[in-house]
Amino acid sequence: MTKVGFVGLGIMGGPMAANLVKAGFDVTGYNRSRSKVDNLVAAGGRAADSVAEAVSDADVVVTMLPDSPDVRAVVLGEDGALANAREGTLLIDCSTIHPGVSREVAEAAAARGVHALDAPVSGGEQGAVEGSLSIMVGGEAGAFEAARPVLAVLGDTIVHVGAAGAGQTVKAANQLIVAGTIELVAESLVFLEAHGVGTDAAIKVLAGGLAGNRVLDRKAAAMVRREFTPGFRVELHHKDLGIVTDAAREAGVVIPLGAVVAQLMASLRAQGHGALDHGALLKLVEQLSGREQE
Amino acid sequence: MTKVGFVGLGIMGGPMAANLVKAGFDVTGYNRSRSKVDNLVAAGGRAADSVAEAVSDADVVVTMLPDSPDVRAVVLGEDGALANAREGTLLIDCSTIHPGVSREVAEAAAARGVHALDAPVSGGEQGAVEGSLSIMVGGEAGAFEAARPVLAVLGDTIVHVGAAGAGQTVKAANQLIVAGTIELVAESLVFLEAHGVGTDAAIKVLAGGLAGNRVLDRKAAAMVRREFTPGFRVELHHKDLGIVTDAAREAGVVIPLGAVVAQLMASLRAQGHGALDHGALLKLVEQLSGREQE
Amino acid sequence: MTKVGFVGLGIMGGPMAANLVKAGFDVTGYNRSRSKVDNLVAAGGRAADSVAEAVSDADVVVTMLPDSPDVRAVVLGEDGALANAREGTLLIDCSTIHPGVSREVAEAAAARGVHALDAPVSGGEQGAVEGSLSIMVGGEAGAFEAARPVLAVLGDTIVHVGAAGAGQTVKAANQLIVAGTIELVAESLVFLEAHGVGTDAAIKVLAGGLAGNRVLDRKAAAMVRREFTPGFRVELHHKDLGIVTDAAREAGVVIPLGAVVAQLMASLRAQGHGALDHGALLKLVEQLSGREQE
Amino acid sequence: MTKVGFVGLGIMGGPMAANLVKAGFDVTGYNRSRSKVDNLVAAGGRAADSVAEAVSDADVVVTMLPDSPDVRAVVLGEDGALANAREGTLLIDCSTIHPGVSREVAEAAAARGVHALDAPVSGGEQGAVEGSLSIMVGGEAGAFEAARPVLAVLGDTIVHVGAAGAGQTVKAANQLIVAGTIELVAESLVFLEAHGVGTDAAIKVLAGGLAGNRVLDRKAAAMVRREFTPGFRVELHHKDLGIVTDAAREAGVVIPLGAVVAQLMASLRAQGHGALDHGALLKLVEQLSGREQE
Repeated sequence: MTKVGFVGLGIMGGPMAANLVKAGFDVTGYNRSRSKVDNLVAAGGRAADSVAEAVSDADVVVTMLPDSPDVRAVVLGEDGALANAREGTLLIDCSTIHPGVSREVAEAAAARGVHALDAPVSGGEQGAVEGSLSIMVGGEAGAFEAARPVLAVLGDTIVHVGAAGAGQTVKAANQLIVAGTIELVAESLVFLEAHGVGTDAAIKVLAGGLAGNRVLDRKAAAMVRREFTPGFRVELHHKDLGIVTDAAREAGVVIPLGAVVAQLMASLRAQGHGALDHGALLKLVEQLSGREQE
Repeated sequence: MTKVGFVGLGIMGGPMAANLVKAGFDVTGYNRSRSKVDNLVAAGGRAADSVAEAVSDADVVVTMLPDSPDVRAVVLGEDGALANAREGTLLIDCSTIHPGVSREVAEAAAARGVHALDAPVSGGEQGAVEGSLSIMVGGEAGAFEAARPVLAVLGDTIVHVGAAGAGQTVKAANQLIVAGTIELVAESLVFLEAHGVGTDAAIKVLAGGLAGNRVLDRKAAAMVRREFTPGFRVELHHKDLGIVTDAAREAGVVIPLGAVVAQLMASLRAQGHGALDHGALLKLVEQLSGREQE
Repeated sequence: MTKVGFVGLGIMGGPMAANLVKAGFDVTGYNRSRSKVDNLVAAGGRAADSVAEAVSDADVVVTMLPDSPDVRAVVLGEDGALANAREGTLLIDCSTIHPGVSREVAEAAAARGVHALDAPVSGGEQGAVEGSLSIMVGGEAGAFEAARPVLAVLGDTIVHVGAAGAGQTVKAANQLIVAGTIELVAESLVFLEAHGVGTDAAIKVLAGGLAGNRVLDRKAAAMVRREFTPGFRVELHHKDLGIVTDAAREAGVVIPLGAVVAQLMASLRAQGHGALDHGALLKLVEQLSGREQE
Repeated sequence: MTKVGFVGLGIMGGPMAANLVKAGFDVTGYNRSRSKVDNLVAAGGRAADSVAEAVSDADVVVTMLPDSPDVRAVVLGEDGALANAREGTLLIDCSTIHPGVSREVAEAAAARGVHALDAPVSGGEQGAVEGSLSIMVGGEAGAFEAARPVLAVLGDTIVHVGAAGAGQTVKAANQLIVAGTIELVAESLVFLEAHGVGTDAAIKVLAGGLAGNRVLDRKAAAMVRREFTPGFRVELHHKDLGIVTDAAREAGVVIPLGAVVAQLMASLRAQGHGALDHGALLKLVEQLSGREQE
């Protein structure tokens, strides 16, 4: 039975690890807050008291962490995953981080005989629970093939998009398009409301043509009702747009819409809405248009 | 047999009128350039030598014209449609124009006992040929019901979205979302290419999640191949974004992404690319990023 | 003694007309609200009960009106200035309006043997009172020379910038730079405050280098104190930025900063701050940054 | 005689060090490329073969380096300035770097008994040669007073703007305003040219009112002539705008114009214009407007 060490058992990592247990993997989990580890044990996994303990006996290590510094600490740190993993281990980092950090990890891993993949996901908590995530994988083809049995439990769209870091690059593009699309839908909804046009009929016809998108399908109705329970939080999308703008700058790519939507997401967060769903961009358009609802 | 007067037999209007003939309507068409009228006659319609002749005997008048001034001239002009239509005629304007002009038309029509609808369409030439347009209709419910048999020939998504002008408002929102989405996809594709990531695999995974949209489905592959044969021309989308920004300004709605993408579309046109498909926004992102291909 | 007909005796026009009286011109004024006319009479001018009466006996007609439609009505209207002015009259329009309307006026004037200049001003109420306005004049050189004695009373920087409409074009550029500079100063001040840097010392050093500008010199201190008594009102600057964006669009000129600052000014107005000084752009930056002060 | 160790003898540092020699300081200089050191010796200074040698005997150390990593290496590095300076030394860093790095330097210096100031300058090569720089100083008041005799040689506007890092924060605001103002002037000039208005007269009248700024005074004429010899290079301003956007993001400050002008400067650089003067933003506005000159 394949042994999986899983580090990071939060909103996303918790259900992902539980799904691996259910699928028959022998999963040992570690998380800074012990209660998350207990949840995994209750689901049939094992507990580890440290990163070292979680990874030292594993065939596959999966990490699901908030940001680049966390990955640096957990994977590259003195008593981290690479320092404790056996040669030949497969390291799958599902965190959304800067592509450059993923390349750093891949190099450091290679130097120790560990095979590393960056495998950020989209699909949110629901996708994690249902095992229906989209997974964008960067790294060597051999490692990708080796990772398939694990990834197939976690998601249903699993695509190898290129070398180390490429998974993060595609995830960055994904976050750019998602933020931009939410903002476009938000501008359109406030525009329609201001002109006295009923949004239900409008959403229906907009969704049917070239303007059609998943944000209209899945989020517009909640936005119209001003329901902003996450879903995906503004503060996380803000972090991701920081990665987008940095990575675009490094590659000399000019992203006029990306730069503006990054400012708008930053404004939502600065105004104290970091814990709302990213659909709350509608609130900002309303505010700017003097149409804020009490 | 219902008599239809059809004014404006261009790329869109031509096939729309032909479809009405095919569906059994008695269609009399007028167009400034006579060759377009001849095409209609070849398809089984009748020729008119003036707007007056096209509409004076019609039960239903359909207009499909380039811009607000054309509609003002053809519909409101001295020897125009309203001056020559019988009382009780149903006027369906399928042009994409400023919502305020549609409201003007509706008022002027009402004063003469004509029932007017604004019914802009989306779906492009292909949708016009196939009779699969999306049609956003503004005006009175009774007129909308009366127009159904005609509209059902032209499109397959037909939605009554509100009072006079509402069809144009929804079309404006449609054009805002479409332009913005194309630009977001363009920024993402150039970003991916600059990072050396293969766009085919990336498009596949992006299309599968919350970033999914019709532009990825229908246009991204051609954009990657730098094929910009229209489709929908930059100069028309530029005109439409003028309507969007004007109508937003009038309603006091702030549209940060809309304003920026309107500048970008204006740049494409100013640089002489008005006749290309709007997917050519990719060219502009490339140019700005110093990655222009010869 | 040169006879001046003056139409539009508001915040700007009132003191301008009074200065002409003081300088020895025989001024007959008209304004829709009679109290403004009474003020002129108290200052030594004459009252007119209509545009016709104000202009019919004048050598020079000066107009100072809010917007393009007002100029169209007062100058081109059925019982307007051109219909009533004598051949050979000099018409100086000091309103800030669309360059295209100024060109219309010039053509219509020429057709009646009237010499028209567009002569928008900057310098605000204080400049109007002190006779220290900057005046940007478009029109024929002969008319400009003829207008000098009048303009010299109203302002101290008087520049002939080109043919009919050119005065408005330069004024539009002026309003673009002013709005943009206020916004840049606002972003900088909020940035400095957020970093805990004292703004007094910062303004001093910023004003001394290449970043130096009149907004730093004259308005930054009031902005830091959150004093937004006009000065120049947001709603007027919003109107002017509408002219800027329209005129740029017509000429195919792309103005990325202009387009964004136009959205920001529109937001201030939409949020009910139209009557504040345009320095209130600082309030918007504060709001977006979650630093609003009660 | 006060002993000064000077590290970084480039376009700015070279003439600054020479001015200190002229003013009677005993200056020992170090630069990676030896020819720059020879220039200093020719001007009457002494040569050092390493950072260590330049600083070990100094009362005051001045550093003038390209970017944050250079300052980290030279000041904080293993064989860097802090490792070799005597207790009580005054360290004046004139580089333009991230405020956070200046705070790091100040802390590390304090831990070794060294007094550190961040003292970025504006005024360009000409200001460095003439000793007429504007200097924005962050750090403790005592250190600022101690630094006055040195700073008074280098510049003529010397302002203590706050604690460690505050000098960099003000410099960042300076670079935001300068870039934005150049872009506003560029948009205005292209707008005027496109409307056929002569720019000489326009610049004169614009410079006289609230739109007046140093860019109009000092750079607009060269921009009109399309002369883009630096001056201050696009690639340096691009670097500085990276600091601005990072520092704004960290403080939660939303800078809509700053974000857009950062994209435009990035575009100039990506298109291969990094070595031109930042006035070349005009080229970009021309390009976007399809008015590029051969």
